[in-house]
Amino acid sequence: MKKIAVMTTGGDAPGMNPAIRSVVRYGISQKLEVMGVFRGWWGLINEELKPLNRRSVSGIIGEGGTILKTARCPEFRAQEGQQRAYETIKKNNIDGLVVIGGNGSFAAAHEFYKKFNIPCIGVAASIDNDVNGIDYTIGTDTAINTALDAIDKIRDTATSMERIFVVEVMGRESGFIALTVALAGGCEDVIIPEKAMEMNVICHDIVHGNLVGKMSWIIVIAEGAGKADDIARQITEMTGLETRTVVLGHVQRGGRPTAASRDLALNLGKAAVDCLIAGKADMALGLTAGKIVEVDFKTAIRKKELKIDNFYKLIKILT
Amino acid sequence: MKKIAVMTTGGDAPGMNPAIRSVVRYGISQKLEVMGVFRGWWGLINEELKPLNRRSVSGIIGEGGTILKTARCPEFRAQEGQQRAYETIKKNNIDGLVVIGGNGSFAAAHEFYKKFNIPCIGVAASIDNDVNGIDYTIGTDTAINTALDAIDKIRDTATSMERIFVVEVMGRESGFIALTVALAGGCEDVIIPEKAMEMNVICHDIVHGNLVGKMSWIIVIAEGAGKADDIARQITEMTGLETRTVVLGHVQRGGRPTAASRDLALNLGKAAVDCLIAGKADMALGLTAGKIVEVDFKTAIRKKELKIDNFYKLIKILT
Amino acid sequence: MKKIAVMTTGGDAPGMNPAIRSVVRYGISQKLEVMGVFRGWWGLINEELKPLNRRSVSGIIGEGGTILKTARCPEFRAQEGQQRAYETIKKNNIDGLVVIGGNGSFAAAHEFYKKFNIPCIGVAASIDNDVNGIDYTIGTDTAINTALDAIDKIRDTATSMERIFVVEVMGRESGFIALTVALAGGCEDVIIPEKAMEMNVICHDIVHGNLVGKMSWIIVIAEGAGKADDIARQITEMTGLETRTVVLGHVQRGGRPTAASRDLALNLGKAAVDCLIAGKADMALGLTAGKIVEVDFKTAIRKKELKIDNFYKLIKILT
Amino acid sequence: MKKIAVMTTGGDAPGMNPAIRSVVRYGISQKLEVMGVFRGWWGLINEELKPLNRRSVSGIIGEGGTILKTARCPEFRAQEGQQRAYETIKKNNIDGLVVIGGNGSFAAAHEFYKKFNIPCIGVAASIDNDVNGIDYTIGTDTAINTALDAIDKIRDTATSMERIFVVEVMGRESGFIALTVALAGGCEDVIIPEKAMEMNVICHDIVHGNLVGKMSWIIVIAEGAGKADDIARQITEMTGLETRTVVLGHVQRGGRPTAASRDLALNLGKAAVDCLIAGKADMALGLTAGKIVEVDFKTAIRKKELKIDNFYKLIKILT
Repeated sequence: MKKIAVMTTGGDAPGMNPAIRSVVRYGISQKLEVMGVFRGWWGLINEELKPLNRRSVSGIIGEGGTILKTARCPEFRAQEGQQRAYETIKKNNIDGLVVIGGNGSFAAAHEFYKKFNIPCIGVAASIDNDVNGIDYTIGTDTAINTALDAIDKIRDTATSMERIFVVEVMGRESGFIALTVALAGGCEDVIIPEKAMEMNVICHDIVHGNLVGKMSWIIVIAEGAGKADDIARQITEMTGLETRTVVLGHVQRGGRPTAASRDLALNLGKAAVDCLIAGKADMALGLTAGKIVEVDFKTAIRKKELKIDNFYKLIKILT
Repeated sequence: MKKIAVMTTGGDAPGMNPAIRSVVRYGISQKLEVMGVFRGWWGLINEELKPLNRRSVSGIIGEGGTILKTARCPEFRAQEGQQRAYETIKKNNIDGLVVIGGNGSFAAAHEFYKKFNIPCIGVAASIDNDVNGIDYTIGTDTAINTALDAIDKIRDTATSMERIFVVEVMGRESGFIALTVALAGGCEDVIIPEKAMEMNVICHDIVHGNLVGKMSWIIVIAEGAGKADDIARQITEMTGLETRTVVLGHVQRGGRPTAASRDLALNLGKAAVDCLIAGKADMALGLTAGKIVEVDFKTAIRKKELKIDNFYKLIKILT
Repeated sequence: MKKIAVMTTGGDAPGMNPAIRSVVRYGISQKLEVMGVFRGWWGLINEELKPLNRRSVSGIIGEGGTILKTARCPEFRAQEGQQRAYETIKKNNIDGLVVIGGNGSFAAAHEFYKKFNIPCIGVAASIDNDVNGIDYTIGTDTAINTALDAIDKIRDTATSMERIFVVEVMGRESGFIALTVALAGGCEDVIIPEKAMEMNVICHDIVHGNLVGKMSWIIVIAEGAGKADDIARQITEMTGLETRTVVLGHVQRGGRPTAASRDLALNLGKAAVDCLIAGKADMALGLTAGKIVEVDFKTAIRKKELKIDNFYKLIKILT
Repeated sequence: MKKIAVMTTGGDAPGMNPAIRSVVRYGISQKLEVMGVFRGWWGLINEELKPLNRRSVSGIIGEGGTILKTARCPEFRAQEGQQRAYETIKKNNIDGLVVIGGNGSFAAAHEFYKKFNIPCIGVAASIDNDVNGIDYTIGTDTAINTALDAIDKIRDTATSMERIFVVEVMGRESGFIALTVALAGGCEDVIIPEKAMEMNVICHDIVHGNLVGKMSWIIVIAEGAGKADDIARQITEMTGLETRTVVLGHVQRGGRPTAASRDLALNLGKAAVDCLIAGKADMALGLTAGKIVEVDFKTAIRKKELKIDNFYKLIKILT
């Protein structure tokens, strides 16, 4: 292992930059050359990459986004694209690849490894936190705190104007962010993909609450479980009460990474380099039970099951 | 002037709480009794009010929203509602009224004063910043910083994924917030109610930018000038480029008030009490040219003209 | 178990309020009466306590500090104080006690349990994060992010003015906060109680860095490892370079709890009630390896060993 | 006017970067070449400068500190240093100079202009806000909000632990920041250079407050009015009450500029270029009464008088 490459793929997540910093600086400390690939797989296909030195990653530890940029790359799904990516790797004498991203990135890396035998190590970075076998990905903690900050602000208006709010947060397939911020934000209800929505229970609670003087509600919905506007319309129809919506959207993706997102990124970046040096491949790294774990790509990209029962109950009891 | 009442009406704005605190504590220091009316005009109609002492407003200086709550009140538009509000005032021996709110609140207060001769002083608090004759209302600075913080976060993704974003900010009739955050956020374009939208110019700039390597754009739109989704669709149609939207919405309304919002609130609250003691009425207070100004209600509720030309030019030159 | 009491003791930590909320609301959901004791042991000695209902803890989930207040209580160390505390418990028919605090609080609770056989469950809340057997206490994540935010700000000046800064963070006996923020903040060096300080190495690095063009440094020191001013003076003496200091101090203790601090608080509060109901006693609850753990008080109050070697090495390699 | 230079001098202030951005981009839009000088006067003396283009200032609008760096420069006070600075200017065909900084910078620029007749325009950027004739300098609003955020956090502990805190904020010769944050933070007292300190009044208030149940105090002191530790010691001696101190220090200097600091910076940068083009010189620009004003350097560097009476009274009445 003399030369490695690092890239960020899929949706950007806060903490990708410190992960890059760690791969580069730790890699160099281990006598490796490190190349940075721009825009993920697209950069491999189009040979957009360049050597990185310690200076290249200075001042980025606290910055959101990714200096290597990221992109979706449909060309990579075709044989031709993969072949060209492989040629870039051979031409540049790259012995191993660190792929910072989420499930989609790992699926691609797994296929690439199988076809061309280029060692790939994944670094789990995704605000959806949906990598199987991994409790926390880089960026999750930041996204949660951003969403919580927004919900705290919405609470001011909900309370002052005695209104019902439906707030849509990230989470296409996972209710993790929704549950976490609903709990931390003292929200009255939460709608997630993992659980059948019970609009009549929600509306019953609202009507009942109104009778005993509870006038403001915040209901969090994960984007994968429905549209905030639809839920709000149903609530208004069933309760007769005006209901507002907020869709937090891309705001949750950016921002300066929290301490937890940075420290996880820095540790995973180092660990990825250690894995490549140790001859490992075809696996993703993340945080599970407070420790760095290695999860083979095949496992990582399976559907992550979220134990939601206790979580959900606690939210209902505490509000 | 022995007893005054204070209330918050219309949409809540960050800084209403310190304004209440100031009216109460300064009023008491001037030997006045101070009553707090709940939910604005609704509270007067329904006699929901109570005496406030120094303790009642302790710990609220940094809180968003309003402890007196606020509500829309269609009943107040009818003669009967106004009469009942007047009776509450008489019954409780209230000699003057401090109305913390925006244009709608001032129009109501003006009518109420004309009919019943109850001295009303308005304290300009509205995140739309659309009170005529007043440069800054309470809450504007906070809302702007909240929107700016969101735009900074969106910039991370716009840059990393090289995307176009249309971000909708508050401002039904005024482009003030949109212009201010577009300038401060280094945004590439801004669409406001005061200026005809030129979609072909915007799209031409984007296409031209793309040719010379500029790949990410943030276009701010005031809610009164159109829907983010419509603009995004048009951009995609005209340029062929994927365009994302974020609607900041109610997040901009809440949150801890900034120093500027708090200090303005505290100064205006005191000034409102001074006005009542001095026998003044029928006027709103706000910040203009760095000083507290008194603007009679009739002037305050007229359409505020915003000089936008230099502002707009600066945005275009600097991005 | 029919009636329990909850109190906060020792230094305040962000997240104590959501912990109180959880004990109260979950306790009530389990058909328990819940009393709130003011100012920790002092409140037991002086019978300052009152029943709490669901409303008592509304709106506090995002607030720093503790609504039950907290205090040091030397009287409790004497037999007489403990006896009076016991009498308050008996007189009020309290069957179990939830003690939200750190090591000092747990030592007292352990002694109290041994003498009077009142079931005490500790909820680990302390920004020092120095409870043995527990990876994370309530408040740690918030304090770390506050310190990191300050260090990010100091970095602006360090870089712009090309200066050396020594920044003192919390941690009387533990370098945990210092290490974590030094890593996340990209700081050049860190001085902690667990490791002998090597001023000549630090100064050598600075002088060497200067020769190759590195002009700004941030050195983090845990308060238990020395005074920022002393370190700065030594650096100036040994290198001839001007060195500034910042002592973050009590700023780290306050502020709105992060999502992690809130969710941990809410989960531990519930778990503490469950423990009391299950007849458990004499143990503290915290987060270890991503799970809630029970640690008997005797273990919890022992000196916590921190594995620092890898941590420290990573900081040195990445900067 | 074909070529101008821009530099930042004195202590860094948040907003210097957007000011640089504005000078560069607006200058270029006016067909000027723009050079960036590093480390202020030192860079002129040592010919450390380089041409800046639109790209050079991209991505800095929200960054604290200054990309041009800043430094104190004692050499500039000597005739030889000034002569060398002049030679750099001549050699590089620089026709005018934009100096972003505070009073010290303006005094130097004034002298330089008188001796060498190089048009210099000052852009007022200083967190001390002590430029005479100017209400607000770039950075002031950001520094105030940073200090306020810290005071809000300290309030959590002051209230929870019922303690007295003395908090030292920036302001060597001016109590502006101290007064502003004391008012916005609901602080109980404030000590500033412009007003004789009355320790016995402060201590009397504390003792009296204690008797009526007020247990927590935050007293803000401007650094120019004394040391927090000295005040705390006196309070403890006179009242017998434990008193803690926090010195906010350099944290106030950094951080992302607020909307107000950015928009002021962008407007002043443009205005400075306009001044140079219009043949103006020897003056500083800032915000007064809500408008950009030109203040000749001789006036700007005089001692700024702060009207504190009403300010101070309001603080005392409202707490």
